[in-house]
Amino acid sequence: DSAAKGNSTARVIAPYTVYKGKAAFSVTPLLPTFSKIDSGNLKLDRRGAMMLTFWPAVGERKYDWEKRQRFALSPTEVGSLISMGAHDVSEFFHDPSMLSSNAGQVSKKLYIKALDGGNGYMISLTVSNNLLKSNERFNVPITTAEFAVLKTACSFALPHIIGWDWLTNRSHKGIEGS
Amino acid sequence: DSAAKGNSTARVIAPYTVYKGKAAFSVTPLLPTFSKIDSGNLKLDRRGAMMLTFWPAVGERKYDWEKRQRFALSPTEVGSLISMGAHDVSEFFHDPSMLSSNAGQVSKKLYIKALDGGNGYMISLTVSNNLLKSNERFNVPITTAEFAVLKTACSFALPHIIGWDWLTNRSHKGIEGS
Amino acid sequence: DSAAKGNSTARVIAPYTVYKGKAAFSVTPLLPTFSKIDSGNLKLDRRGAMMLTFWPAVGERKYDWEKRQRFALSPTEVGSLISMGAHDVSEFFHDPSMLSSNAGQVSKKLYIKALDGGNGYMISLTVSNNLLKSNERFNVPITTAEFAVLKTACSFALPHIIGWDWLTNRSHKGIEGS
Amino acid sequence: DSAAKGNSTARVIAPYTVYKGKAAFSVTPLLPTFSKIDSGNLKLDRRGAMMLTFWPAVGERKYDWEKRQRFALSPTEVGSLISMGAHDVSEFFHDPSMLSSNAGQVSKKLYIKALDGGNGYMISLTVSNNLLKSNERFNVPITTAEFAVLKTACSFALPHIIGWDWLTNRSHKGIEGS
Repeated sequence: DSAAKGNSTARVIAPYTVYKGKAAFSVTPLLPTFSKIDSGNLKLDRRGAMMLTFWPAVGERKYDWEKRQRFALSPTEVGSLISMGAHDVSEFFHDPSMLSSNAGQVSKKLYIKALDGGNGYMISLTVSNNLLKSNERFNVPITTAEFAVLKTACSFALPHIIGWDWLTNRSHKGIEGS
Repeated sequence: DSAAKGNSTARVIAPYTVYKGKAAFSVTPLLPTFSKIDSGNLKLDRRGAMMLTFWPAVGERKYDWEKRQRFALSPTEVGSLISMGAHDVSEFFHDPSMLSSNAGQVSKKLYIKALDGGNGYMISLTVSNNLLKSNERFNVPITTAEFAVLKTACSFALPHIIGWDWLTNRSHKGIEGS
Repeated sequence: DSAAKGNSTARVIAPYTVYKGKAAFSVTPLLPTFSKIDSGNLKLDRRGAMMLTFWPAVGERKYDWEKRQRFALSPTEVGSLISMGAHDVSEFFHDPSMLSSNAGQVSKKLYIKALDGGNGYMISLTVSNNLLKSNERFNVPITTAEFAVLKTACSFALPHIIGWDWLTNRSHKGIEGS
Repeated sequence: DSAAKGNSTARVIAPYTVYKGKAAFSVTPLLPTFSKIDSGNLKLDRRGAMMLTFWPAVGERKYDWEKRQRFALSPTEVGSLISMGAHDVSEFFHDPSMLSSNAGQVSKKLYIKALDGGNGYMISLTVSNNLLKSNERFNVPITTAEFAVLKTACSFALPHIIGWDWLTNRSHKGIEGS
């Protein structure tokens, strides 16, 4: 069980997944990367994210993982999600090729909207590809209970994806005279 | 004190327990299981739960542990519990033999209802056994303070029962060049 | 810095302390104790608490630690504190000699009351000793900001004082086949 | 990757940073220091803080780190920040040379004010130097989402900066007979 000793390279695969009529939806934290700098310290290289994955239903209780689409929520977008009230809307736009020569070819929109009556949310991902002339859309209705899990799990993960978990994985460096 | 070193097999038994006039009630986290997959990574095998246990009073300050009944709250049911407002109701139905040939023989209902006046909740477990023609019911009134402990403890445990505690038990895998 | 390695016996002394005109007030977690049972597992022996300490001012910025009085908040009393709204009152009575032949000699009352105007709380400890005919009282006004620290710190500590921190200090016991 | 083993001296540099039109703003936890006392125990020496850093924009997407100014939020000031409602104001005054012969030369004011409409906050730092007759001011508008990250990250860090993280970095000291 080397995974438990903290110096293993084994990854743990444990997304929180919700299966609904037309699509499934999962969320899992994506950790930041660090690089060693001259001082020997570690500097945040790339922020982490909450990776959302959607894949379509292709029959009763059957889903096609090959047709999945992803959306990586940045820390600030996670802040938006966890502060949503019972009547709020959040909308995020991503261009996976932003700042490259392919910018604008593919655009992704994530839309989270409280359902009328206040008993849940609709989470929608739309992926438009100008080159392929394709437009995919995933709709996953989320209950209040599922959204509470999402909020709690994202709040728990947030300090980790911004790189602050060194706070819980360290020795007493502040001891004078040691 | 091998338990502290993280590679022991000793379990810690520390439920949060509430003793009331007609029954006692305890809650403890049940962790998920993982299996090693070909890549050497660990994949969530079975989600964890919050295990609720009820057992009846059989005299003054005397309770009969042999007559206990259990109810395992799934992560989403935990999300329902921790998002309950001061006037809400939650109701969960379980069939311990679901999808087996014994399906329908035993049914369990957990019912959580805010008390009038807003100063607490009634938690009730009903276990009906069609074969034995039995029907057991446990009623445990919970104060607002006890419910706050329940909420805080369940919110703390939720990331663990969905298998996300690798976030706090790991090395800096994201270091480039190491 | 053996303290960091988790198998040291060094304790960390770091109460959260508030100094006010007539008295000082500090809070620190008191961990539960466990005993090994026949199976080799660890069973909760005695629940932890949040230990509140009050000591009087005896001059300008001078406080007399020798005259301190303590009050140990149980997990459920902590639940009461962390669920207090901006207009609530909490009151707790303790008898340090409860169930002994000295029961009733000393009684302690902790009283927490939202201040008019909603900008803080008064925390009062009264210790009455029937034998010594003494009656000590400590009043510490707490700002909303200080109460927020108290709530956040107590919510953080609660899973630890009920003995659930094995959730964060463990190996992947659920791995099948290992 | 010795950093992961808990006895390294490598520091992790991972502030949460927000870049806006006129200035950038970052926040990172500053841990407390401890000293060994005669008993071999560790006593909190100096409380930690949340270190806020502001530095000005000097062109489009260009910022001048050399002109940074800092403001260290105490635990109680963090309590004030995390309990701010959607219409609240917080104001903190610091004198970096307080209690020294230079007291009063430099004064710093941090001002956090909810924006009209409830969709965010303005965070302003003013640094006045009587000797240099200088007065610098940094204004950083923060969205509701960014403030949610700030609140969540500060709530996560608070137990650490008051020195309570020994709760999560310890062995089972409470085991009787071991």
